[in-house]
Amino acid sequence: MSLQATNGAGEVELGQDFTRHVIESMGPNTSPRLRQVMTSLIQHVHDFAREVQLTMDEWMLGVQLINWAGQMSTDRRNEGQLLCDVIGLESLVDNITYRAAAKSGKPVTASAILGPFWRADAPTRPNGSTITFDTPDDAQVTFMHGRVVCAETGKPIPNAVVDIWQASTNGLYEQQDPNQKEHNLRGKFVTDENGEYSLYCLRPTPYPVPNDGPAGKLLKLLDRHEWRPAHIHLIVQADGFKPVTTQIFDEKSKYLEDDSVFAVKSGLTVQFQERKGDPNASLELEYNISLAPAA
Amino acid sequence: MSLQATNGAGEVELGQDFTRHVIESMGPNTSPRLRQVMTSLIQHVHDFAREVQLTMDEWMLGVQLINWAGQMSTDRRNEGQLLCDVIGLESLVDNITYRAAAKSGKPVTASAILGPFWRADAPTRPNGSTITFDTPDDAQVTFMHGRVVCAETGKPIPNAVVDIWQASTNGLYEQQDPNQKEHNLRGKFVTDENGEYSLYCLRPTPYPVPNDGPAGKLLKLLDRHEWRPAHIHLIVQADGFKPVTTQIFDEKSKYLEDDSVFAVKSGLTVQFQERKGDPNASLELEYNISLAPAA
Repeated sequence: MSLQATNGAGEVELGQDFTRHVIESMGPNTSPRLRQVMTSLIQHVHDFAREVQLTMDEWMLGVQLINWAGQMSTDRRNEGQLLCDVIGLESLVDNITYRAAAKSGKPVTASAILGPFWRADAPTRPNGSTITFDTPDDAQVTFMHGRVVCAETGKPIPNAVVDIWQASTNGLYEQQDPNQKEHNLRGKFVTDENGEYSLYCLRPTPYPVPNDGPAGKLLKLLDRHEWRPAHIHLIVQADGFKPVTTQIFDEKSKYLEDDSVFAVKSGLTVQFQERKGDPNASLELEYNISLAPAA
Repeated sequence: MSLQATNGAGEVELGQDFTRHVIESMGPNTSPRLRQVMTSLIQHVHDFAREVQLTMDEWMLGVQLINWAGQMSTDRRNEGQLLCDVIGLESLVDNITYRAAAKSGKPVTASAILGPFWRADAPTRPNGSTITFDTPDDAQVTFMHGRVVCAETGKPIPNAVVDIWQASTNGLYEQQDPNQKEHNLRGKFVTDENGEYSLYCLRPTPYPVPNDGPAGKLLKLLDRHEWRPAHIHLIVQADGFKPVTTQIFDEKSKYLEDDSVFAVKSGLTVQFQERKGDPNASLELEYNISLAPAA
């Protein structure tokens, strides 16, 4: 066949002509965007295989890893996502997607990856209430509060929804842990007329990503640890503004420089302060969020 | 953090410094080969994401496709493998792996991809016997025979194992089809003292790859058909020789130029001849196999 250069004997080398043939097999009704994405993907995957002279056995191990990721994924766990996270892909794509908002030059809150533990059905709770119901003895309860403002005008945004979730001090989110009640350490708060929200939560602690699947296996093979620095997840959204998905990191935490999923960014570290006179919390955290207008 | 260049506002661009940081997170105990493979893989995956400015939504669709592949895979079906096949990856890796054997310049039989339907436990059958037990009315039974020889000396190889499998005329392999008996159209044949094997099989017919999973979905989105040209699968191995996994294609078949999994190569097309005087077969196929010495 014309797309193969012979190699002395029966076996021929599948070079760039072969890759072009695979790319050009896309039909005229492929959407322009999908054509662009798949052209680049096929080119890079083929170049990768040629560059490292990937063998059948190695490729099959990769296929098994990917199949295993799917087999471990449920509505409560996304192992394919975690596999992407440990090679920095989710952080990169998150950055590509949300960088546009920052191009205005205004101080928009930086984004960070969603991670696999967000739940769409978290309950809305009143400001000043708690998200910690099964508080462990080693936990430090924190009064967290702040204001959601417009990045253009600095004006407060009422009725913004601040969706917050975090792991307990044993490193587990409630859906991973039969000893935590449903929706423990998880809730949505709606800002008041001053754009303010408030709640009681835990000072977060470092924890390892799950190591019983292919992502854990890969980390082990790459001689990397599984730990994430202490963080709280947030999604903040309001009508007329671009939503932001982010994580805030305790500036005193271990693993800020070597997060196993590469989510730490400058501007996302926060400082927990001592809180006095509140029987419900020993620490305080003020965290303000700045959203870019949607238009 | 030093690995991020600021972008005017809070959001920063994750460029080559970020990719280097992810690659350099591999620990000292990573095996040299895995380090080589993962360095190239991470570089290409990151470059791909930046090149097409991949968005979170697009990436998540990819994650879902990959998880779906795992969820559909069983001991009888490998959808992760099929997903690789439709972007030409298995053919490319097969080519990389087995090209070495051909570098000797001797006429070694060319390889082709294994595909997802091989079974390790196929029965050994006597030469001259049949692999077709539920022969459909529209099938053309073929007497297939040939000799396995050494590529260096041309001498016949006795006790070589010729493992053969094919789909029925409805396009299904026996493990996909409750109406075919166990191991129908599948068997191993051991060459005699003259290096010869023989069996009755079907003239193969084109068939579509399974379209009920992510590979089928992708083909549809790429406006490509699902068809494979008519072929018979073989694995041939003998003590002291490099085994070969291959496929032979009916030179009269449709789809030789646009195989949905890109497995067709020059040197792998064969000619079915009329056979006279045999009440069991109307066609004949001679196919000789040449193996490279292992050393």
